[in-house]
Amino acid sequence: MTHIPSVATKRLPGDRERATTNEMRYDWLADRWVIIAPQRTARPDDFINQPLQTQDPATCPFCFGKELETPTAVATYNSRKASPYAPWRVRVVPNKFPAVNPWLDGLVSAELEHELHADDRINLFQRRELFGAHEVIIESPKHIQSITDLDSESIDLVFQAYRDRLCFWLQEQKCAYAVLFKNVGPDAGASLTHSHSQLIATDLLPTDVKRTVDRMRLFHKKESACLFCRMAQDEIENQARVVEETPDFVAFCPFASRMPSMITLVPKSHHARFDNLDSFATKQLSWLTHRLIRRIEKCYPDTAYNFIIHTAPSCLEATEYFHWRMELFPRLTKVAGFEWGSDCYINPLAPEEAAHRLRAAGV
Amino acid sequence: MTHIPSVATKRLPGDRERATTNEMRYDWLADRWVIIAPQRTARPDDFINQPLQTQDPATCPFCFGKELETPTAVATYNSRKASPYAPWRVRVVPNKFPAVNPWLDGLVSAELEHELHADDRINLFQRRELFGAHEVIIESPKHIQSITDLDSESIDLVFQAYRDRLCFWLQEQKCAYAVLFKNVGPDAGASLTHSHSQLIATDLLPTDVKRTVDRMRLFHKKESACLFCRMAQDEIENQARVVEETPDFVAFCPFASRMPSMITLVPKSHHARFDNLDSFATKQLSWLTHRLIRRIEKCYPDTAYNFIIHTAPSCLEATEYFHWRMELFPRLTKVAGFEWGSDCYINPLAPEEAAHRLRAAGV
Repeated sequence: MTHIPSVATKRLPGDRERATTNEMRYDWLADRWVIIAPQRTARPDDFINQPLQTQDPATCPFCFGKELETPTAVATYNSRKASPYAPWRVRVVPNKFPAVNPWLDGLVSAELEHELHADDRINLFQRRELFGAHEVIIESPKHIQSITDLDSESIDLVFQAYRDRLCFWLQEQKCAYAVLFKNVGPDAGASLTHSHSQLIATDLLPTDVKRTVDRMRLFHKKESACLFCRMAQDEIENQARVVEETPDFVAFCPFASRMPSMITLVPKSHHARFDNLDSFATKQLSWLTHRLIRRIEKCYPDTAYNFIIHTAPSCLEATEYFHWRMELFPRLTKVAGFEWGSDCYINPLAPEEAAHRLRAAGV
Repeated sequence: MTHIPSVATKRLPGDRERATTNEMRYDWLADRWVIIAPQRTARPDDFINQPLQTQDPATCPFCFGKELETPTAVATYNSRKASPYAPWRVRVVPNKFPAVNPWLDGLVSAELEHELHADDRINLFQRRELFGAHEVIIESPKHIQSITDLDSESIDLVFQAYRDRLCFWLQEQKCAYAVLFKNVGPDAGASLTHSHSQLIATDLLPTDVKRTVDRMRLFHKKESACLFCRMAQDEIENQARVVEETPDFVAFCPFASRMPSMITLVPKSHHARFDNLDSFATKQLSWLTHRLIRRIEKCYPDTAYNFIIHTAPSCLEATEYFHWRMELFPRLTKVAGFEWGSDCYINPLAPEEAAHRLRAAGV
């Protein structure tokens, strides 16, 4: 009988070459193994890709002149330069079809509930009301479909809006949790083509987010260091998975990424809150994001993608273990039965190879 | 300041009517809240659905006469009646593009590893080899695209194949974990149209599966009852979410389902192992599955769907708390940025309404 040993190797020379057989990699943050299966890419495919067909842009409710088709803006951002599209460059509105019920002044976020009982018997039918916010960040008055069509000043305004709205819901209104995300293309969950992002804030910290917060706290307790500070340092040292760096940020394909060509972007030094970003960092970050999305668009034209900004929930008792991060990922694979059944993801593209391709895409 | 109370109501009269505002529901098994947001269905959509285009069936490697295009069969099933498609009705072959490395005689499954260290420092780059099996169950010699096109004898043979292969990998070969799943349509992760299912067996129990096993054990410890025995009993009593019953099985839309029109099917009495199913139960189950998939096809024509059979992992120390189950779900929504960021799902269709629609679809 042969026991299969774990290969406890931190860094392997020639990582790219090794990834031609199937292997598992451990995602420490998620406490989850991922299958890297490069052989899967050779599969035949019965389904023929068809170009997307979209509605007439004249129906778009996000364009300049259609402001009455959305709820009233809660914030607008404008350029220093005059523009025929005044009075706004970026416009934040409540989502007309919200997933949460409106936050009311004076509400406080709920305590985390882990074991739920009624009359000392486990209640399998527990429900609660849900309060918070669901906002849309409209990123241009023009009907552009990619954030990469924005000039540098506009994309900087977009990132200022992200920061300000997260700050408002987490620090002023004290919602337990808020996340900023972008869906581009129907496969990424978008329903409108006009470039936009969304923010959802809730009065309860989702259980799985709490789990990752607990993992960061555990790492800090055991190692007296922040998980993502360590990871950024290791990735910069190794370079095999780094896509791009600026003085303050590094973007890399994570070692155990669940999806092909996923990119994690973190500040190199420790910062818990994206919503505390200063304007110098915002500029650098918007510049880098623009370049990363152009790399994705060059490698995988017309592919749907998402990005997500994970910032510290408002209920943290300390911020030395939480490091904010952004995740970007083209939607190249579908979540199939195995993944739904096991929560174990099969990624057909090794992150080292993904980083190589993204680096090679000139921008 | 108003604290938002949890609504600890087990069953509410008029469940269907209530579900017109957003609410959260707690999935006890997954320890996860789900957002039920019926208002989301009214969203506009820029993207125009197009009919699927597929390759010429002449290229299909699963049809009768193409047996040399797949690896050699590990099992075949035949009808009692003569058939022009002899010598097989159902054929099980190793996947030509496997996600796992081949199982070797004498291998033993790995212990669950939770904390992974190297030199007393947490290793963020842990990898391991992965052994197991990846098989394809080809469900007909003809180029049919839905299991509902099979006659009752054939679908019964398909379920016998599911049972036998799970039994082989879990009970004979003692793989830690095995799951049977079906992907239909590209949105469900399928790459071939010919009706087929897949089995993946691994030498390591995925972390999230272990988590659900632990939840079932916890429920049993606290309640001296099996979670799914209790849930089946409650659903049958309530009826609001029941889609269909047979003497031995019940199919219902789970109270906190992550996706619209998801169906859970369980045996009414306690059984841990699908792979121990007797032939009477197999017949009843294949009959019921056929009807449930017809209901899905009638409610949502041409929609992709998955099903998954969760049976007990081989490493359980006892089977009184694990109850096998099957999950079926059309792929009506996409996993978008919010879901990826928070692992909190937004389901726009209340399960009570979903069950009502599925029941109303005549079959």
